Amino acid sequence: MDYTLFSYWRSSCSWRVRIVLSIKNIPYQYHAINILSGEQKGEEYIEKNPLKQVPYLHGEDIGISQSLAIIQYLEDIHPTPSVLPTSPILRAKMWEICEIINSWIHPLQNSKLTNKIEGLGGDKNEWALEVVTSGFRAVENILEQVAGTYCVGNQLTVADACLVPQVCNARRRNVDLTPFPNISRVFETLLALPEIQRAAPENQSDAVK
Amino acid sequence: MDYTLFSYWRSSCSWRVRIVLSIKNIPYQYHAINILSGEQKGEEYIEKNPLKQVPYLHGEDIGISQSLAIIQYLEDIHPTPSVLPTSPILRAKMWEICEIINSWIHPLQNSKLTNKIEGLGGDKNEWALEVVTSGFRAVENILEQVAGTYCVGNQLTVADACLVPQVCNARRRNVDLTPFPNISRVFETLLALPEIQRAAPENQSDAVK
Repeated sequence: MDYTLFSYWRSSCSWRVRIVLSIKNIPYQYHAINILSGEQKGEEYIEKNPLKQVPYLHGEDIGISQSLAIIQYLEDIHPTPSVLPTSPILRAKMWEICEIINSWIHPLQNSKLTNKIEGLGGDKNEWALEVVTSGFRAVENILEQVAGTYCVGNQLTVADACLVPQVCNARRRNVDLTPFPNISRVFETLLALPEIQRAAPENQSDAVK
Repeated sequence: MDYTLFSYWRSSCSWRVRIVLSIKNIPYQYHAINILSGEQKGEEYIEKNPLKQVPYLHGEDIGISQSLAIIQYLEDIHPTPSVLPTSPILRAKMWEICEIINSWIHPLQNSKLTNKIEGLGGDKNEWALEVVTSGFRAVENILEQVAGTYCVGNQLTVADACLVPQVCNARRRNVDLTPFPNISRVFETLLALPEIQRAAPENQSDAVK
């Protein structure tokens, strides 16, 4: 398999995919897409991804957008080590964590939206804070039931790949993490792992230091 | 298995789960949560789902929120008939369709957000139209490659469960579907199926006619 990942160093969703590639030790070419200069709006890239988003994974017979779709594909093709718990109940709780982050917290505080709110005279930080806090409350609730060393027991899963970028983002927004002891503990543990570090924004070729 | 689905008749995400329950012919109790009267904010319900959302599936050993997490659980426990394509490539394209709807179109035009935009003096319909149109363009692009009778070939999949409620929602917003011939064709085909009809909002016990 010969993969190219179209990615932007600071993109949370790109980071999720890089974490899974790293956990599974899958080699890939890194193709930086500079979101700030609008490279995702170029004609060549729009043909790949009409939503003008990263990440995008190009493989031998396939091009896929949407981080969780890419991750499910990688799990199908490279099942070992698995990033899914074996028990259906734990797998369900894992997807619940992923979707709270992927379909609630992340889209509701993305910059297209927060810029819209700011443009209308609203307080974008207040909005983002409310979204992140309500989402983290729901995630914390699940971690209380299922966390071990990591989000779900002692296995690295897709939930960890979703959690790390979201907590980093929350820290940049100065969200108080005190009410979320499980999220904080798991996050710190994850951040120290070489698999996560290798995938971190600051360690990508397009990082601006 | 003894399931209870906490659902609201007009909730798109509840409808997704009802469609999969219907395709798989899984019996369940229907527990209506009246979103309009704020029943999802009651203490008893918040304990189940701190995000105060429907759907929520209660089973013997489990309670799950987030429509796609619930659907993955149902697929694990009741694998026949499957709502996932067997080919990894088609499965990836299916999840891509699901996530464009689940993590882009749906959250960016949910009423909490559009009310916020309206409250700030913005045009909520213009915003929602832009979100739906950009998302549908991306979905149409994938359907061009993989659609058959349904979204992905000739098998009912999770993508169909996501598409139907989203197109109904778009029609309520008077979105012009002419630029999306594959979406329109697949939607009309799906809407005529008894599996989809059984799960439709107007056929739920809490429907207001």
